[in-house]
Amino acid sequence: MGKSRLEAFSDGVLAIIITIMVLEMKVPHGAGLDKLAPVFPVFLSYILSFLYLGIYWNNHHHMLQTCRKVTGTILWANLHLLFWLSLFPFATGWNGENHFAAVPMALYGVVLFMAALAYWLLQHAIIASQGPDSLLKTAVGNDWKGKISPVLYAVAIAASFLSSWISAAVYVAVAFMWLVPDRRITKVLTGEEV
Amino acid sequence: MGKSRLEAFSDGVLAIIITIMVLEMKVPHGAGLDKLAPVFPVFLSYILSFLYLGIYWNNHHHMLQTCRKVTGTILWANLHLLFWLSLFPFATGWNGENHFAAVPMALYGVVLFMAALAYWLLQHAIIASQGPDSLLKTAVGNDWKGKISPVLYAVAIAASFLSSWISAAVYVAVAFMWLVPDRRITKVLTGEEV
Amino acid sequence: MGKSRLEAFSDGVLAIIITIMVLEMKVPHGAGLDKLAPVFPVFLSYILSFLYLGIYWNNHHHMLQTCRKVTGTILWANLHLLFWLSLFPFATGWNGENHFAAVPMALYGVVLFMAALAYWLLQHAIIASQGPDSLLKTAVGNDWKGKISPVLYAVAIAASFLSSWISAAVYVAVAFMWLVPDRRITKVLTGEEV
Amino acid sequence: MGKSRLEAFSDGVLAIIITIMVLEMKVPHGAGLDKLAPVFPVFLSYILSFLYLGIYWNNHHHMLQTCRKVTGTILWANLHLLFWLSLFPFATGWNGENHFAAVPMALYGVVLFMAALAYWLLQHAIIASQGPDSLLKTAVGNDWKGKISPVLYAVAIAASFLSSWISAAVYVAVAFMWLVPDRRITKVLTGEEV
Repeated sequence: MGKSRLEAFSDGVLAIIITIMVLEMKVPHGAGLDKLAPVFPVFLSYILSFLYLGIYWNNHHHMLQTCRKVTGTILWANLHLLFWLSLFPFATGWNGENHFAAVPMALYGVVLFMAALAYWLLQHAIIASQGPDSLLKTAVGNDWKGKISPVLYAVAIAASFLSSWISAAVYVAVAFMWLVPDRRITKVLTGEEV
Repeated sequence: MGKSRLEAFSDGVLAIIITIMVLEMKVPHGAGLDKLAPVFPVFLSYILSFLYLGIYWNNHHHMLQTCRKVTGTILWANLHLLFWLSLFPFATGWNGENHFAAVPMALYGVVLFMAALAYWLLQHAIIASQGPDSLLKTAVGNDWKGKISPVLYAVAIAASFLSSWISAAVYVAVAFMWLVPDRRITKVLTGEEV
Repeated sequence: MGKSRLEAFSDGVLAIIITIMVLEMKVPHGAGLDKLAPVFPVFLSYILSFLYLGIYWNNHHHMLQTCRKVTGTILWANLHLLFWLSLFPFATGWNGENHFAAVPMALYGVVLFMAALAYWLLQHAIIASQGPDSLLKTAVGNDWKGKISPVLYAVAIAASFLSSWISAAVYVAVAFMWLVPDRRITKVLTGEEV
Repeated sequence: MGKSRLEAFSDGVLAIIITIMVLEMKVPHGAGLDKLAPVFPVFLSYILSFLYLGIYWNNHHHMLQTCRKVTGTILWANLHLLFWLSLFPFATGWNGENHFAAVPMALYGVVLFMAALAYWLLQHAIIASQGPDSLLKTAVGNDWKGKISPVLYAVAIAASFLSSWISAAVYVAVAFMWLVPDRRITKVLTGEEV
């Protein structure tokens, strides 16, 4: 029960974050196709952030399936993750409005980096709660994706001051790397429910 | 379980989309009846979009009742559908503010078209996951509504450059065609729960 | 199951409506107490609308407890109710910004009237689905509150053009009349769950 | 069932409140680091309010675990709590925009005070519903945190007119005092689920 309410609250917050981002796409004044042009970069950044939040929801969903009991640490680690994810609309809107300039691109990377860190902390809080035979620990394995992502985000943050196209390429590449749902966990849970 | 969280998340996103659309109806400055007049076209477009989102929620609800296991493909097909539906508030607000001008009307049709395509993809992802005896496949049958809708949206997009009244008429007509809930699925599930 | 998803969706929409209303209370520029003064009427109208939406959620909750199966008619009657409730933030914000002027007060009454009508339609859709021994029909009884409210709203709409204080008094009075939760339904369900 | 819908609705409202607060952090025009500076105080106030709402959600979650039946009084006490919590985005945004000036800081304290009072009322409504052997009463014990918090908020409200840094320190200190989840309740429920 504790877990189902944690899931419900997280789903609610994620659903709201993913949806209010679209409010950053301001309805243009005037009806021509040319009026739509300035909205286009906001739209692109919206797609990328939608992908990232979809990935987080998806992996969060798989991760919590292995979780049997919810401790205070897990509750707060989860809220900490939601906090960083809640900054997506701000970072997304700022990028869209400034056509992927250096500082907004770096900030986007910082939000991604902190969210990745928060996800890692939540993962470890769940593993710690499951003791030595942790199902999640087995499922996660060497977790190369989880380890390489923050490194890539850090590279992209630095690169944004050289060229924001490098950072953009990194952000898109990491998203595609994660798009494949976490089959490691799926494998461990096989037969049960995925 | 996987399915119930998919439903909960989809419900959350749909509930937010359907509700934040109303924020596009900006509170007018001044208290006269004449101040309400410019809000009227926004109100009309809000009604139509509310109907469409209601139809999507309703049919989504019926479709998922036939779904027993949630695969990664279904998860992403569902997120893809939610993505296009999340563009309703933008398309609705732009139309309302420009009194159904050509380009906004065409854009509205594009969003409808893409959402219909995304729905069709989700439907096929579920059918594929159910194997040869797919309950949903039987329920859907020849799916004439699902096939004719994108064609009509495409016609309406083209027509919007002739007269946006034609497109408006098509959008309203398709909505009413769908207002009847998907009784095909209901029929197959009969006795169970509808 | 069908019913639990209907409840979840309705809860989601109601939770969003009740919460985004607070966005109509715009953060004032400047930090003095005098800057807070123009927010006060918006705050008052927020309290009243919060009460009304709380009452709707509460009674909706009791009403659905008697409902065993969800038909297509119930689904659409429920969406129709949510549509009118979704206009609360607009009507509330317009009133707050114009200090309860005649036309905004009349519009508020129109929204209340239509929501009451929609609630009545939903109630009848559920009763119709339950056949001659309808639990809800017994529970509702002569439904004097449901019958007198639209009459009072209509009076308040007309009165708003004489004095908006009369309408305000009627809206507040009707809210307090409903604040008592629907004990008729509670009584019939006694012992079960309330 | 009554309880699960109460939880779902509360979760929805809390999830929305915690998320729309981020909308008060307006995307700055221009892409420089200097443009980010004025957002910083809003960010700080957002962190504090996020913590408070996380604490409320967490304790609300523990408190409702002890609740077996939902009475009309509990429903309304819960809505009353949600009402005061819904004012967090307004109070947070006003503080952030005015760099923690005296009146906004005092108002923040008023919202905290009223929310604490509303929480206390809800707690007592649940205890009253459980009769003499109330599980929650045992769990809460002498409730020193619940008693000292409103006193501290009142002190902070008064202090804000001397120096808003004193109030800020008090608000932060009280938040950290509560960050430890309500282990009293956890202890009573031990073995069950936390």
